[in-house]
Amino acid sequence: MTIIKRASVPKMDNILGYSIPVLDHGMIRVIDYMGDDSAIVQAARVSYGSGTKSVSNDRGLIRYLMRHWHSTPFEMCEIKLHVKLPVFVARQWIRHRTANVNEYSARYSILDGEFYIPDPEHLAKQSKQNNQGRGELLSAKDAEAVRQLLMRDAKRAYDGYEAMIDEDGIGLARELARMNLPTNIYTQWYWKTDLHNLFHFLRLRADRHAQYEIRAYAEAICNVVKQWVPLAYEAFEDFRLHAQEFSRQEMDALKAILEAHDVFLSSERDAEWLGGKGLSKREIDEFIGKFQV
Amino acid sequence: MTIIKRASVPKMDNILGYSIPVLDHGMIRVIDYMGDDSAIVQAARVSYGSGTKSVSNDRGLIRYLMRHWHSTPFEMCEIKLHVKLPVFVARQWIRHRTANVNEYSARYSILDGEFYIPDPEHLAKQSKQNNQGRGELLSAKDAEAVRQLLMRDAKRAYDGYEAMIDEDGIGLARELARMNLPTNIYTQWYWKTDLHNLFHFLRLRADRHAQYEIRAYAEAICNVVKQWVPLAYEAFEDFRLHAQEFSRQEMDALKAILEAHDVFLSSERDAEWLGGKGLSKREIDEFIGKFQV
Amino acid sequence: MTIIKRASVPKMDNILGYSIPVLDHGMIRVIDYMGDDSAIVQAARVSYGSGTKSVSNDRGLIRYLMRHWHSTPFEMCEIKLHVKLPVFVARQWIRHRTANVNEYSARYSILDGEFYIPDPEHLAKQSKQNNQGRGELLSAKDAEAVRQLLMRDAKRAYDGYEAMIDEDGIGLARELARMNLPTNIYTQWYWKTDLHNLFHFLRLRADRHAQYEIRAYAEAICNVVKQWVPLAYEAFEDFRLHAQEFSRQEMDALKAILEAHDVFLSSERDAEWLGGKGLSKREIDEFIGKFQV
Amino acid sequence: MTIIKRASVPKMDNILGYSIPVLDHGMIRVIDYMGDDSAIVQAARVSYGSGTKSVSNDRGLIRYLMRHWHSTPFEMCEIKLHVKLPVFVARQWIRHRTANVNEYSARYSILDGEFYIPDPEHLAKQSKQNNQGRGELLSAKDAEAVRQLLMRDAKRAYDGYEAMIDEDGIGLARELARMNLPTNIYTQWYWKTDLHNLFHFLRLRADRHAQYEIRAYAEAICNVVKQWVPLAYEAFEDFRLHAQEFSRQEMDALKAILEAHDVFLSSERDAEWLGGKGLSKREIDEFIGKFQV
Repeated sequence: MTIIKRASVPKMDNILGYSIPVLDHGMIRVIDYMGDDSAIVQAARVSYGSGTKSVSNDRGLIRYLMRHWHSTPFEMCEIKLHVKLPVFVARQWIRHRTANVNEYSARYSILDGEFYIPDPEHLAKQSKQNNQGRGELLSAKDAEAVRQLLMRDAKRAYDGYEAMIDEDGIGLARELARMNLPTNIYTQWYWKTDLHNLFHFLRLRADRHAQYEIRAYAEAICNVVKQWVPLAYEAFEDFRLHAQEFSRQEMDALKAILEAHDVFLSSERDAEWLGGKGLSKREIDEFIGKFQV
Repeated sequence: MTIIKRASVPKMDNILGYSIPVLDHGMIRVIDYMGDDSAIVQAARVSYGSGTKSVSNDRGLIRYLMRHWHSTPFEMCEIKLHVKLPVFVARQWIRHRTANVNEYSARYSILDGEFYIPDPEHLAKQSKQNNQGRGELLSAKDAEAVRQLLMRDAKRAYDGYEAMIDEDGIGLARELARMNLPTNIYTQWYWKTDLHNLFHFLRLRADRHAQYEIRAYAEAICNVVKQWVPLAYEAFEDFRLHAQEFSRQEMDALKAILEAHDVFLSSERDAEWLGGKGLSKREIDEFIGKFQV
Repeated sequence: MTIIKRASVPKMDNILGYSIPVLDHGMIRVIDYMGDDSAIVQAARVSYGSGTKSVSNDRGLIRYLMRHWHSTPFEMCEIKLHVKLPVFVARQWIRHRTANVNEYSARYSILDGEFYIPDPEHLAKQSKQNNQGRGELLSAKDAEAVRQLLMRDAKRAYDGYEAMIDEDGIGLARELARMNLPTNIYTQWYWKTDLHNLFHFLRLRADRHAQYEIRAYAEAICNVVKQWVPLAYEAFEDFRLHAQEFSRQEMDALKAILEAHDVFLSSERDAEWLGGKGLSKREIDEFIGKFQV
Repeated sequence: MTIIKRASVPKMDNILGYSIPVLDHGMIRVIDYMGDDSAIVQAARVSYGSGTKSVSNDRGLIRYLMRHWHSTPFEMCEIKLHVKLPVFVARQWIRHRTANVNEYSARYSILDGEFYIPDPEHLAKQSKQNNQGRGELLSAKDAEAVRQLLMRDAKRAYDGYEAMIDEDGIGLARELARMNLPTNIYTQWYWKTDLHNLFHFLRLRADRHAQYEIRAYAEAICNVVKQWVPLAYEAFEDFRLHAQEFSRQEMDALKAILEAHDVFLSSERDAEWLGGKGLSKREIDEFIGKFQV
């Protein structure tokens, strides 16, 4: 009788349970995972049956699935993380609805007095161009003033919190007292999601337009995912994170530019140097096809 | 040619766009709605076809659907609210994942300095029995001390926020400065959900174990829903909000008690007085059946 | 350095990958799982922090969570099944939206000619009372006639399918030819879901009102879950599967019956025999409380 | 007192309730809708506050939201359709999980004997290149043979169905008898979804790689959406339906081609002709930026 074992990834087993620091007091920690690159392939082969035979190897199949937005096989992998993060980051993060979450409850329990205080190199001015972005760095003096202010207000708020919940004093209900605490206080949660939705999260949050603080978490998770499902992660980088989308009008402009310079791509003539850029035979045809729609 | 009109509810049209106050500075406001009691019935009749004929009237059918957890017809109604609420309430609220949300972004825009300060009659001690609850009210003196502390810390935090974002001063990015603000600051959002998921929200949040502050919103919404879909709301109260669930062991105990007192319910003999309690013919059979499983 | 291991359940590891037969040609097969009873407890303790101390043991905490609909800790467990099932069962099953699915695609690949033909003991008449149910069994003669008819039509339909897709003949596209096949043909999929949503599925589909054919799958899954998370499964049976819900009107009737027989429960006087029914100290208080709302 | 009215779209009100034919016996019918282009803008202005001032007009803002995947404002619109469709199409459609569905139940009620029989111009061979696609059309003779076969088998299957459910004969339960019916039988449902998820559905199903039969529905819905939210629909066409995505490798190839031909785009020099292609000032900067990452 053959013993069938769960998909496991030695590199993941090695980091299981260990904290990976993020920001000044935050961290992520892998609690558990389900599946690996092969599990994606296995699920795809159930779906497409003999239809997947034409894509012979795992890497090719995973890249094909990613490229063509066949997302359900990626949903067959799951990861569970323990995350410690400031409340204002948690408020952005929770907007990703397709995940399971168990957050520390400040109704039940007392929050620790740990606050995120940004390092000077992350303290920047409001951008003039971008309403949701940061511009140039603060001067050393202004940065220090901001840090002092944040620390002072956090301390005062936490002192007030402690004074209100003191069982020998006022003894205010914890669910009320917590409202005094600023959103740079750290909370923590267990967060569990499938790989497809994790990639969606990472695409948005590892993006350079994401707020630095959540991006720091996204980048730490990217490093974990790279070890967990290296083929899927590579495909994610190539077809999502570093991909560019061109609108109908941009495609028109692009075609006009190429035409103006007499550039007419040919799958035979240009196969070699396009292959040199890392495009597979099938991708070359698809690439050229994008200019012929 | 018959003109077919959208389902509309005059009572809802009358309150459209008007603020209904909640807490000290909060509110809810109906922006739009889709469907009414008839829309629920209409959807059920599509599903069950001639199978619904045995339940002749709308009220009976809606109560049947609610009782038997046939939830999809209730999903055919939708409501969109504008809500102004403290951040700590928003953090509980957002855990209901099956809704559409557009929240005011403190990355893009500056938050107003409005904070929730509980009235003295809502300032209570931490419960000894219930880890997540409130016990007896604070003394007038303690309540005032808490209110003063909350007001003082909110003011200081907002002063710090304003100092940091001052364009003529430090000019810190808004996405950073906001972390200094406590969670009793008000935010606002558009929140859109279907009636089934709204009932689920209301069941949990209009419950007496819910934190008072979110319950205040839930109760305001209950009043709106009562006007919008009166038959569905009545069924929700009867079969959800005021229903009780008995475990296998509790059912065993209940049966033993009834048996010990020689109580044997009969759908014929007891029909009259059970009908007097508001049970329909069909519900009487179902009621008696629960003791016979 | 301590080696931290993934939660694992030896009983599950033993059945991993092995087919458990359901219906005439169907099966379920556990492909992978994440978490165990302890993982539920661990997630709850993150949420409730020191607030969980009052419930000292795992069984008590899991039962508390189930009883009070604290569902997020159950979402921390995940299971992945390979299922082979008739299309008409798949059509009911897929209505549970919170799951990940990879189904065999009849656009890509050719379906096998396997059809579900009910055993005579599952061939019943349309119920007169219940529009969606079965009544008395067919006579042996009628049952045989139905089986012959189903087999004959399935064979003809499949012959037609094969004739249409024959590459040396018409060579019709598979995505078109499949429309000729009846819904008792078997399909297969990978289905992955979290434990909370699985319990919801099982509650509806292992219920005696569910259609027998999907119930057969639900019962096979129940047996798996019982081995996977025995404490959670026990709580599910007690607080969901064998629980009864009483409406406001039913509670009024129940209270009136008890009052009429001078039954007044007391947590002190009745503790012993209620404990004998399997109710914990806390559950006894809750039980009595249900009659005092 | 100002009367505030629900967002309404006269063009939609005109088609409300009227069937729009699709395939041979299918149709879609708008039952209700919530919101319009302005509702998208209104929700975005709540989210971004004064941050939206820089995009002055509605069209510009909607295009900005679509381009940058700010999807939540589109979720603020909702549509409810009545759809009559073959079961094999319904099986693809239902995979879009974020929608509310009430389908006709063949457990409760008897299905009508209406079957989809493709027109000859939609009967094509299995593609050799594409495992999930169609190739060249069948010959007139083969097409007729297929149509005859489909009609014959549908008729036989339906005769069997009727024979089995005949109340004066076998009287088999409807939930059992239906398994004999092929998947080209028509079913119907109410389907309700928000605009963001509808666009996702349309992007996949109005695509030329989608199976023709579901594409026919997607195209009929596109025509409805164009009348409902013309600005959002235009943006959807430009930034989704007719957009192209280029992978990291494709971008490298594209940059190399442009460089080889000494094409260096400049937001000043090239503004005029790029504007002529329909790109706004902001889009021109973004377009050029894509080659500079």
